[in-house]
Formats: sequence, structure tokens, C-alpha cells
Amino acid sequence: MHLIDNLQYANWSEKIFKQMREGGVDAVHVTIAYHEMFREAVANIKQWNRWFERYPDLIFHGTTGEDVRRAKCEGKTAIFFGFQNPSPIEDDIGLIEICYMLGVRFMQLTYNNQSLLATGCYEEEDSGVTRMGKQVIKEMNRVGMIIDMSHSSERSTLDAIEISQRPIAITHANPYFWHPAKRNKSDAILHALGQSGGILGFSLYPHHLKNKSDCSLESFCEMIARTADLMGIDNIGIGSDLCQDQPDSIVEWMRVGRWTKDMDYGEGSAKNAGFPAMPSWFKDNRHFDAIAKGLEKKGFLQKEISAVMGENWLRFYDENFGHKHLKDF
Amino acid sequence: MHLIDNLQYANWSEKIFKQMREGGVDAVHVTIAYHEMFREAVANIKQWNRWFERYPDLIFHGTTGEDVRRAKCEGKTAIFFGFQNPSPIEDDIGLIEICYMLGVRFMQLTYNNQSLLATGCYEEEDSGVTRMGKQVIKEMNRVGMIIDMSHSSERSTLDAIEISQRPIAITHANPYFWHPAKRNKSDAILHALGQSGGILGFSLYPHHLKNKSDCSLESFCEMIARTADLMGIDNIGIGSDLCQDQPDSIVEWMRVGRWTKDMDYGEGSAKNAGFPAMPSWFKDNRHFDAIAKGLEKKGFLQKEISAVMGENWLRFYDENFGHKHLKDF
Repeated sequence: MHLIDNLQYANWSEKIFKQMREGGVDAVHVTIAYHEMFREAVANIKQWNRWFERYPDLIFHGTTGEDVRRAKCEGKTAIFFGFQNPSPIEDDIGLIEICYMLGVRFMQLTYNNQSLLATGCYEEEDSGVTRMGKQVIKEMNRVGMIIDMSHSSERSTLDAIEISQRPIAITHANPYFWHPAKRNKSDAILHALGQSGGILGFSLYPHHLKNKSDCSLESFCEMIARTADLMGIDNIGIGSDLCQDQPDSIVEWMRVGRWTKDMDYGEGSAKNAGFPAMPSWFKDNRHFDAIAKGLEKKGFLQKEISAVMGENWLRFYDENFGHKHLKDF
Repeated sequence: MHLIDNLQYANWSEKIFKQMREGGVDAVHVTIAYHEMFREAVANIKQWNRWFERYPDLIFHGTTGEDVRRAKCEGKTAIFFGFQNPSPIEDDIGLIEICYMLGVRFMQLTYNNQSLLATGCYEEEDSGVTRMGKQVIKEMNRVGMIIDMSHSSERSTLDAIEISQRPIAITHANPYFWHPAKRNKSDAILHALGQSGGILGFSLYPHHLKNKSDCSLESFCEMIARTADLMGIDNIGIGSDLCQDQPDSIVEWMRVGRWTKDMDYGEGSAKNAGFPAMPSWFKDNRHFDAIAKGLEKKGFLQKEISAVMGENWLRFYDENFGHKHLKDF
């Protein structure tokens, strides 16, 4: 079994990289940008290059499914880059391929707010995928960068699933039927995502969980079982949204960026502005095994557990990273 | 035989890409930046991406020696990126690996003037490789980007050959003994370059040729023979410096950039400011065969002709592109 966590944004350190190894995590999709423009995103990639140089026995830069297999063989964790916002491509469609060349493999079309491309999940009006958004989807399809709609709104997400000629991802969110957060996804989206070969990564961020920090492992696994029934066992995985060791200033950067002078609390509130506590059974990269065990207890077969814990993402990486000529569609 | 031209900077067009195919050119190292800073160099790479997308049957982006072999097999030309100036890395050593990730495989430490790294061939004082220059050489050695000293001065070039732990290149210049231009190289440099496993690419730019535009093919081939005696037959290749179809404004950009408000004529003069006419026997990518025939007439063996026309560069690509851990030196 390959273990893949398809979304983390930690305050990276040797400690965390070692925890990835302790937990046997073969691949992690890490966030390179929340609100960063191109040049700032490049600076973040440079920082990762220094970590790759400094900790070659723990991590390396992954760009293909094959790199996940290599990571498992060599006892390392392959790190995949992604943007949570299209801000790094600015207004320039040519920057998509440039970012792909720099190893970026996922990009959200929106992060909570309206972007040049689509509407975020916190906007009151959802006008769907824009003119530029359609061009960007076509270009992302061509180069093989995955469209991620985790922070997008209903119509925009359904639009993206329909417009994209390759499957898309919702890397980190949960079903709305289980916990009605603005970031969680409707049955309509989950059904369309599954039908189109896309993947949903289940989030462990407490604001996305039923009973938040007090969410039980059993409830989480029950939710996975119900989602598998809705979407298919091949269309789900993990995207923990783990934000380990981050100071509150980073939560503020995620929520407020530079787009307002006011404070915005996102899924939190003025009284509860910081990171909520993680559930007792999942605190860091060493605890994926608890989820696998929870699924086993719930009656999942070993093959199904492997699918959820990484094999589905691995197949998705194999099929959807990399250039494809339009005639191949 | 693989045919490689290790330096061109043309006003790129379908016409020129077709001429590369007519001439059977398997690989060309093209200039991405003269004075461009990072973001401007990225814009130039974006433009190349558009050409790769538009002319997939003629050209593709090459990054390894294997790509030269693939080009020959598929009847295409592999395009390798290089900078003639370190301006794209600005003051930031981390940008070397970023540019490597974008496919850049060659970088000059200086372009005529003093840079942050070393001294250019037109400066009066040559202070050698700087503190940052030493760090940049180490980093270029690590990631496998080739140090190019074509436009550098005597001491800086000898310093770079000595400091670098991997062989360096002078991609486009000729021996000073044949034609005493400021850009041509001393016996001391050529000898040290050959001894260290480096390569000299012979230039066809008329200001680098004996009798300039009137240089005879025989004289050019005689010069190659003498240089082979000095450096070794394995340490020479072609770097034509072909600047086809460029308007005079581009010559001005090369020479003046943004570093002065005055006019500078480089190797030309006020009376002869534009591009000089190319020699009658080499005008574009269709004419490399003339050089091969000239070498044959001069008594070179077929194996030696192949070495000069591309095999030496191919071996150099195989050995010197790509990451190497410092412990491997």
C-alpha cells in the first residue's frame, strides 16, 4: 500500500519530515501559495529546494506517480507542490506551464473569494467559471496540472467538473451531508466528481468535522463509508489539511491575505480565531494508521482501505499529471 | 553523427526551425537572456513554450543528452536554454536551481562588463571571480548548470576553470592566436580549458573571424586543426553565435542593455554598428555541412569530424547536466 496525504500546510521542519517517515507517508501534497503572486511563490519553492538539499534522506521533490513508488522503495517522502489560489499565475496563462516546469501539480481556481477564474465558497453570488477560467482549465488540462476546487463555490465547482476534459480534484473537504460547513461539498458535487473520475480528499481540519475537535474516529469512518457509497470507492482519498506547528499569524495570512484591511475569521470566529485543536486520534503524520484501523473496524476490505489511504491518489497522479495533446482527449 | 550548435540567438520563426531540420541540426543551445532579470527571462521562456506548442513536429525543449538522441530519432531539433549573463539570478543564489528547473542549462558568469560574479572581457581591470561568484560556481556545479565564460576576461576565466569542480564551457569564441579580438581566447585559457575537460565552441560571428566577413572556410578549418592540436580533439565543438534575421535594435540591446545611456558598439564601431555579413559559406542552419566538408578536405578523419560537429557536446551534456552531490566530486 502507498500512503498519500493530498494536502498539508505545516510549519515545515526536520521534526515534521521525520514524523512523515515514522508514519510511513510516501507522498504529501504541500501548499506553496495561499495569496502569493508569481515571484513570491518562486521564493517559497526556493525554500523547499533548500529543504530537499538539507534533508535528502527524508524528502525529495515529487512530480510523477513513479516518484511515489520510488519514495516507498527508498524510504523517503515525495513532496508534491500545489497552489491553493491561482494568484501565482497572476493574469498570465503562460505562467501555468512555467509553474508546471517548477513542479507545481495542483492549483485551486479560487480560494474562498472570487478570483479571475471562478467564485470562492464565501462569496454571496456565484457567477461560475469566467472567460479566463475556461482558458485556464484548457491549459491546465494540456500541461497536466490538476484543477482543485476545494475552496470554490457550488456552481463554479460543477462548471469546472463539466468544462474540464480531464478529471479534477477536491483535495481537502468533506461532505456537506455529514457536517454542513461552507467548505464542505454537496451531494450534487460529490456525485458529479465521482462520475467524472475525480477524487475527494477527506479533511481532518476540525472546522470540517462533525463535532469539530471532538469528532470521533468512528463518525469519520462512517462518513467515509457513506461517501464511498455516493461517489465510488475509487474516487476518495485523504487530504488532511494538516497545519501543524503554525503560528496564528499564518491563519491570518490564509484568511486575510492582502485583500482586506478588516479581520476575517474564515471558518473560525472572533472568539475562536486560532487553529482549533486536532481530534485526539489524528494530530500529525504518525497517525494515518489510526484511520486505516478505523476503516478496518468499519468493515472495509484491505483493498478498499489501500484505495482510500493512497492507491486512488497514486492512480490519479499516474493518469492526470503530464502533458496531453488536445487531440488525445 | 549528432549535429549540435551550442549557441544561437536568432529572431526565431517557423522559417528558422524548418532550416534547422533541413540542416539536420539535432540540438541548438539558444540564448534566453542578455540583460534580462528573472521575471523577464521567465517571459522569454514562456515565449519558447508557445513555440514548442505551435511547432511540435520541428522542435522541443531539451534538457538532457538523451534528448539530443531522441531529437535525431524523431527528426526534430532539441532546444537547450542558456543565459549569456547572470542577470536572471539577480542577487539570489536560490534562483540558480529555479532556473535549472525551468530547463536552463548554461549561464555565463559575465557578459562583457563586470557582474556580481566575475569580470567581463571589455573591462579595463580584471579582478577575477568574486565572493558571490565562488558560491555561484559551487551551486552551478551542484545542480548541473554549465558555467560559460565566452564573454569573460582572462583572469576571471582562468579562475572559473580552476574553481569549478566540473568542466566548464566557452560556448562561442575563437582562439586569439588566429584573430586577436577581445572576445577571442588566449592560449593559456584554451590549454587550461582542454586540460580540465572543458569545451570551446567555435564562433562564426564575423567579428571573431580572421578577415571577418571575408574569412575563408579553409582558414576557419585550419584554425580548428591548430586548436585541436592545442586543446585536444575531444574538447572542441561548434557554437556559431548565429544571430539570424535580427533587427539592429537587438544588437543594441545586447551591447547596451540598460547599463548606460551612451551608445556602445561592442565589437563593431559607429561606422559599422549593425550585424556584419556572415561568411559566404555559412549563413544559416542549412550550412553546417560545409564546415564538415571543409574539415574533411583539411584531412580530419570522419570520427574527428563527428566529434567536432556534435559528439563532443553530446558527451559533455551527458556528463555535466544534472545534480551531483558534493560528496561525488
